[in-house]
Amino acid sequence: MSTRHAPFLSAEKAAEVRERFGTPCYVYDRARLEATARRALAFAAPYGFTLRYAMKANPSRGILALFRDLGLHIDASSDWEVERALAAGFAPAQVQLTSQMPSRRVKEHVSRGVLLNACSLHQLELFGQAAPGHAIAVRINPGLGSGSTKRTNTGGPAASFGIWHEYLDQVKALAARYGLVIRTLHSHIGSGTDPEIWKRVTRMTLDIAARLPDVKTVNLGGGLKVGRMPHEDSVNLEEVAWHVRSELEAFRARDGRALDLELEPGTLLVAESGAVVATCVDVVDTGRDGYRFAKLDTGMPEIARPAMYGAQHPIDVLATGRPTVDVVFVGPCCESGDILTPAPGDPEALGPRAVPEPAIGDLVIVGGAGAYCAGMAMINYNSYPQAPEVMLEPDGTLRPLRRRQSPDQIVANET
Amino acid sequence: MSTRHAPFLSAEKAAEVRERFGTPCYVYDRARLEATARRALAFAAPYGFTLRYAMKANPSRGILALFRDLGLHIDASSDWEVERALAAGFAPAQVQLTSQMPSRRVKEHVSRGVLLNACSLHQLELFGQAAPGHAIAVRINPGLGSGSTKRTNTGGPAASFGIWHEYLDQVKALAARYGLVIRTLHSHIGSGTDPEIWKRVTRMTLDIAARLPDVKTVNLGGGLKVGRMPHEDSVNLEEVAWHVRSELEAFRARDGRALDLELEPGTLLVAESGAVVATCVDVVDTGRDGYRFAKLDTGMPEIARPAMYGAQHPIDVLATGRPTVDVVFVGPCCESGDILTPAPGDPEALGPRAVPEPAIGDLVIVGGAGAYCAGMAMINYNSYPQAPEVMLEPDGTLRPLRRRQSPDQIVANET
Repeated sequence: MSTRHAPFLSAEKAAEVRERFGTPCYVYDRARLEATARRALAFAAPYGFTLRYAMKANPSRGILALFRDLGLHIDASSDWEVERALAAGFAPAQVQLTSQMPSRRVKEHVSRGVLLNACSLHQLELFGQAAPGHAIAVRINPGLGSGSTKRTNTGGPAASFGIWHEYLDQVKALAARYGLVIRTLHSHIGSGTDPEIWKRVTRMTLDIAARLPDVKTVNLGGGLKVGRMPHEDSVNLEEVAWHVRSELEAFRARDGRALDLELEPGTLLVAESGAVVATCVDVVDTGRDGYRFAKLDTGMPEIARPAMYGAQHPIDVLATGRPTVDVVFVGPCCESGDILTPAPGDPEALGPRAVPEPAIGDLVIVGGAGAYCAGMAMINYNSYPQAPEVMLEPDGTLRPLRRRQSPDQIVANET
Repeated sequence: MSTRHAPFLSAEKAAEVRERFGTPCYVYDRARLEATARRALAFAAPYGFTLRYAMKANPSRGILALFRDLGLHIDASSDWEVERALAAGFAPAQVQLTSQMPSRRVKEHVSRGVLLNACSLHQLELFGQAAPGHAIAVRINPGLGSGSTKRTNTGGPAASFGIWHEYLDQVKALAARYGLVIRTLHSHIGSGTDPEIWKRVTRMTLDIAARLPDVKTVNLGGGLKVGRMPHEDSVNLEEVAWHVRSELEAFRARDGRALDLELEPGTLLVAESGAVVATCVDVVDTGRDGYRFAKLDTGMPEIARPAMYGAQHPIDVLATGRPTVDVVFVGPCCESGDILTPAPGDPEALGPRAVPEPAIGDLVIVGGAGAYCAGMAMINYNSYPQAPEVMLEPDGTLRPLRRRQSPDQIVANET
């Protein structure tokens, strides 16, 4: 076992996880979560800077509390996320709701001081009716100039997120009708790793800000890509910051406004700080010309990204002195798609990994599992109970964040 | 509104669903569930026939109870599913466990009379150790002769399901060592709609049965495809039955054994009898050259198949007197993949539908949602509470099967 992908978990610690909490179990690393957050907080914005955690990436209360203590704010995607953020101790003014679903609690949010981001003309109208004269954010889809495709993205003509940029006059008219003050301009476009794209997005956003005189803050969303595998690219935050900074400074030079900046990362803040500790429960093969499969007790119910996107997660077999073999890792569900190592980007093909030959009972660690795993999984598929979550503290303590679901809880609402 | 895809739900009934249970809400149609089950029960097997419901498709207690009353048996995919089936009133001898995960309750299952299917050599060994002399089933992966690809499937070299056919001698040796009697041969291969494939699978399975003298039952699994859209093919059960029957008769002629048949459909039994009643919560567009989007309050948290596979579900907008327009339906999550109408087979591309122009507040019915929706969804993604389930009784009564999850329940296990 040469390279380890979840270095925060020693073999001894992984064994302790299994002993105390059973497998599968999510483990998060406080030290790494804090270090990652501090690095993001240091983003070199030229004027004010607010870091919002896109909590849909992992809404665990333990993670929310950690980020709250470090001074992060919250990007909430639903009324329910707002409640979870407040329950975790965030001040209402630290929470901004950016939701596809029009909120059903606009008045309540306004009265408490939760920030609202109008993601459609209809939402803008609702805000105006419920809170005339209020200061709000508006999410604009700035389009993507040449080269845009019909592929889905959170920006461009194939995306339903935000108000299409051509409707800016309607935005202004609606705001004026209700005396709404557009204080924040939001334009998340899921921009990946290319700093040139960030530069372009920033400029497009600022061109819109130029037409919205009350805007004091621009929010560029998240989409800061993290490569979970060694060969996958990760965004270079410093390079992004350099481009964004120069655009904001240029805007100030021509417009006069020194705009505050907001970013809303999810993956960037948590992906690499989480792992699933699992057990190899079986090893089978399909003959000399076939494949060797290691069956784990984790799969789609805890980590759906591979089955969904062909996403790649590092996998460590905690064994020593074994020959290296090619292995396809599969999950516990009776489902042909429950594969932890699909071919990259192709959930229907197999992507064997060279690992120490796995044996039944081995501890196996699936890395890169802090983002969109516990928060976005096929919970209870094949009736497996929801897995527990544990925080690894810097002193080595394992602190439970969530118990394993009981079978009774799965059916608790059945009548 | 010319064609309706979930004809069991009138506009009035859908409105009643929303009024009483809110949206999104799963609705199942007892009359259609019963009719579908009776048609499958009438499968023309030449000798004995057992119909097992693959309960992972939809483990709702209300549906389990309905099938129990009709005399169906159960295909359980995990220890937890066994418990749910027993809790729903199935006799242990009606429940067969076919699991990727080796059971942790072999002795308990045996003592109660739950049937066990050895899906790997390791499972076979576990059964032998726990219940020597017991009668069991064995799941074999019969391989797929020429033309098999590396694409995933539940059969063939790229599948981890069952014991590779080349290891039959090891199966026999292990069974002999523990005095296990191989009474059932199981060989699900997810065979789609082509009756020729069914014929071939049956013959391959019977060739293996010929080498297992104690086998009295062959189980051909499920994989009976149902087209949820008008243009999609559905399996022709009568045609499949004709092929399977002739193979079983030919086997008897050459071998002497009149083998009982088992089938284990999931989708076939429930897919078309379920719908999600939703509300159109917003309508946006991306300009003249872009798309029109209807945002629904249902999406990945209730129906993950489109986002996962590019699967197609019929969608009805319950509106009259509106012009027909092309609409992309999206879900409530801040997630570019939360699309209910992707291009067929391509979850990353958009597949607009021609529907009556949707308006905010419209009732919208997503059809074909009985299988792998409530049972296989991104529950709680974006912190949306799990949706309720309701049974539409033949007399028009809406009988609640499961309440909507409360926000408190989402975080109940957090410490």
